[in-house]
Amino acid sequence: MPTRSLHPTAKTPAHAPLGALQSALPNTLRRIVGDAHVLTEGDLSAWEQDWRKRERGRALAVVRPANTEEVAAVVRACVAVGTSIVPQGGNTGMVVGSTPDASGTQVVLSLQRMNQVRTLDAANLTVTVDGGCILQNLQEVCAAAGFLFPLSMASEGSCTIGGNLGTNAGGTQVVRYGNTREQCLGVEVVTAQGEIWDGLTGLRKDNTGYDLRHLIIGSEGTLGIITGACMKLVPMPVAQLTAFAAVPSLDAAVALLGLAHSTLGAGLTGFEVMGQFALELVRKHFPQQVIPFHGTPAAAPGRPKQGTAPSEGSQPHAVGSLGAPYCVVLEHSDPESEPHARAQLEWLLERALDQGCVADAVVAQSVAQAHALWHIRESIPLAQAQEGLNIKHDISIAVSRIPEFVRQTDALLTAAYPGARLVNYGHLGDGNLHYNVQAPEAADAEQFLKTEEKGVNAVVYQQVQAFNGSISAEHGVGSLKRDTLAQFKSPVALQMMRAIKQALDPQNLMNPGRVVQL
Amino acid sequence: MPTRSLHPTAKTPAHAPLGALQSALPNTLRRIVGDAHVLTEGDLSAWEQDWRKRERGRALAVVRPANTEEVAAVVRACVAVGTSIVPQGGNTGMVVGSTPDASGTQVVLSLQRMNQVRTLDAANLTVTVDGGCILQNLQEVCAAAGFLFPLSMASEGSCTIGGNLGTNAGGTQVVRYGNTREQCLGVEVVTAQGEIWDGLTGLRKDNTGYDLRHLIIGSEGTLGIITGACMKLVPMPVAQLTAFAAVPSLDAAVALLGLAHSTLGAGLTGFEVMGQFALELVRKHFPQQVIPFHGTPAAAPGRPKQGTAPSEGSQPHAVGSLGAPYCVVLEHSDPESEPHARAQLEWLLERALDQGCVADAVVAQSVAQAHALWHIRESIPLAQAQEGLNIKHDISIAVSRIPEFVRQTDALLTAAYPGARLVNYGHLGDGNLHYNVQAPEAADAEQFLKTEEKGVNAVVYQQVQAFNGSISAEHGVGSLKRDTLAQFKSPVALQMMRAIKQALDPQNLMNPGRVVQL
Repeated sequence: MPTRSLHPTAKTPAHAPLGALQSALPNTLRRIVGDAHVLTEGDLSAWEQDWRKRERGRALAVVRPANTEEVAAVVRACVAVGTSIVPQGGNTGMVVGSTPDASGTQVVLSLQRMNQVRTLDAANLTVTVDGGCILQNLQEVCAAAGFLFPLSMASEGSCTIGGNLGTNAGGTQVVRYGNTREQCLGVEVVTAQGEIWDGLTGLRKDNTGYDLRHLIIGSEGTLGIITGACMKLVPMPVAQLTAFAAVPSLDAAVALLGLAHSTLGAGLTGFEVMGQFALELVRKHFPQQVIPFHGTPAAAPGRPKQGTAPSEGSQPHAVGSLGAPYCVVLEHSDPESEPHARAQLEWLLERALDQGCVADAVVAQSVAQAHALWHIRESIPLAQAQEGLNIKHDISIAVSRIPEFVRQTDALLTAAYPGARLVNYGHLGDGNLHYNVQAPEAADAEQFLKTEEKGVNAVVYQQVQAFNGSISAEHGVGSLKRDTLAQFKSPVALQMMRAIKQALDPQNLMNPGRVVQL
Repeated sequence: MPTRSLHPTAKTPAHAPLGALQSALPNTLRRIVGDAHVLTEGDLSAWEQDWRKRERGRALAVVRPANTEEVAAVVRACVAVGTSIVPQGGNTGMVVGSTPDASGTQVVLSLQRMNQVRTLDAANLTVTVDGGCILQNLQEVCAAAGFLFPLSMASEGSCTIGGNLGTNAGGTQVVRYGNTREQCLGVEVVTAQGEIWDGLTGLRKDNTGYDLRHLIIGSEGTLGIITGACMKLVPMPVAQLTAFAAVPSLDAAVALLGLAHSTLGAGLTGFEVMGQFALELVRKHFPQQVIPFHGTPAAAPGRPKQGTAPSEGSQPHAVGSLGAPYCVVLEHSDPESEPHARAQLEWLLERALDQGCVADAVVAQSVAQAHALWHIRESIPLAQAQEGLNIKHDISIAVSRIPEFVRQTDALLTAAYPGARLVNYGHLGDGNLHYNVQAPEAADAEQFLKTEEKGVNAVVYQQVQAFNGSISAEHGVGSLKRDTLAQFKSPVALQMMRAIKQALDPQNLMNPGRVVQL
């Protein structure tokens, strides 16, 4: 086997020109997958550029196998010449984890052509899919069969289930259905040796040794390539209702969450929080959206105006304004009926008003109204982008400690960075905040990021560490957070991770340099 | 470091007498945990004998540390002299996984003294416990705080949460709440190097690298020792109702399961199936129990007799008899109210009757009646034991394929072993059957087992393999199924398991010989 650096990074192109064996690799790959599916020329930016445009790499080749056997053959061919492989699904990751480094020596293995739903087993409540199946397509196939596939996120039109699993993606229904990990019963994996492990049994119980499924899920392509998955299905709820509530504080939002858990049980399928400034940005950049409790001041706080949610396309108007520091979108799903679901949700909101954890609330009266309410939440990242460059965090803390974390960290940041604007929103039901920082209004945002991003991150991550939280709740590690992770993760855990990586990929050819540095 | 065999087995005592360092180990351990907590003499059968009395080992010492730091110090002391460690919780495992081998060279590390509930965080819906906390104690602490801890099994008065996690125990509520694995947010682990990894963050989202939690869970003490855990809580349901239904076939039971999922949603918290002969054994050996639809023949099948469940202590009487080949116990939990729960459950049973997947049904009218119905299900293993020695299996198959599996395997077994009596029952909601074989009525059961167990197992396991199932759904591997596993598990998966074991426990000192043989 030819010797080569086992540790290419984005910053260090290969020292030596490609060896003869490696130069011949594209032709070997063509013999495996066909000429049309090995790309080496032209504009490869779709595969070489990361989603957030943080880094642009250069691939030796982009190879697009048609099936699992071809994936295995590609891996074996790459391993034979010591070439590393970057697995790629929809390439929508947030942490630079699925694009090649700048060396021009890595093969991008795209799962794009493996995009089929293989089988749906209604009695077993499972669906088996190719790793490259696009999330939205999977949702639609399941819905057509009367089932809910509850993974949902902004990128669902592009991201793939293999990528969702590789990064253990989160989304907006985790409070009920868990992360991608919790929705998966088994995976089919091509190992770093180019062997196939078929774990697609569809079993809900299988205690025959170490749980390799969960080890592969979230490993970001560094331990093997997910070529297929068996996912859980949920019978389609009969009713899904959305409420939008103004809450007097984050403590009140946490109290509302507890009340929602006990009142709705598993009916609680979404619980998102949005800070006042996040909503302010939506109102500013998308003025056509109607944001309840967020416009012209109303006379006085009062009983919930259930039944007065905004309708899409109507003029913006406030249905009340309390100057509430936070609002919550919550979703309730019910297997019984819409009237029953509505009665339960209204009962929850009445109790919440009585207990003072909700100041005002509306319940959507139609699917369109529900979409409009969710659309407010989903518009926050876009509104932030419109406002200018900003510093993003994807953190998690025990739900009970979030109010104190935010109080403390807000204070630290506003003291250290006067005028910095805090955009705080996220999946409170899972303890996951996108606790972002926008430059002061008058500042040059680019300059602010250049000089202050490191310091801002240090404040936030040290606070996260002090609160026993995570610096990457749902986005993963990739290249972007790898070195930060090394500072904030337990050295014992990091050592176990390195040992596992070395055991399963001793040549360090599977997405090297991501997650852990050897 | 003194050299010694790294691979002691139950059959091969250490070749050489203990070295001087190893002989001194008990005294070293006494200095760590105190004299009273290192046991080397007297009757140690509680620690040396496995639960099912399959094997009796001999320990160099039984050591009972008081806290995580002591566990770590014990491990370091053992590692320093190359002595292997057998972690033990309640010692209620089914597969000989927590007792020492016969060599007299292993240290049993008992978590008995680490039995406290550390903290309960109501707003985060989590409880953090010592690894040695007894399951029933944990259930009670949670219930007193208004929460359900939904793990439940026959051994709950003795088994520990660390053991539940080590073996990823199942139980009767998996259909809703998952196995122990799915109820765990994090673990505290002492590694094979005697280091402490504190994963007790209580986070629902944490994508910072490989999921070490899930790797440790189910590894049966072979990768590290679980000294603490952070577990999920569920708000206590307002109502829990139990129904008992006669079904005309296993296919009908599967259809009922699907209907229950779509009708009750997450309200379905238990779904157990019992074959006619299993119920026959309960009736024979526990005649005081009233088994609905299973006694003197009734005039005719009819509409469900809801509201006519047996009351505890009443004379046995049949409320109908259909000669149904299977009965189902199902449980419905509701956050709303008992009348609402009852209406939903009765609606389900009406629909099931209309669709022909239920022949008759009763709904318990009181907690005592519900307990009586569940008690029938729970009495099956005891009734089997009363009937005599039998061959046990703990298998899982995709729910959709279970009827065909049972049809085929029943036929194969009754053809090969005329008169053999099949005791089929289990957690149909999870695809998990305890598909057991009782000797023919006239046969000497001990002799039957001696001559036929291997052959019976071969038939069952080959069928399981043909149906893409698991030979150990919830009991684990231990010593008992290790070699069988090597025959039926994917060689690729086994190789990955061995690589992980070698990476994390290179000296093979953590419960060696269990799960995988190196």
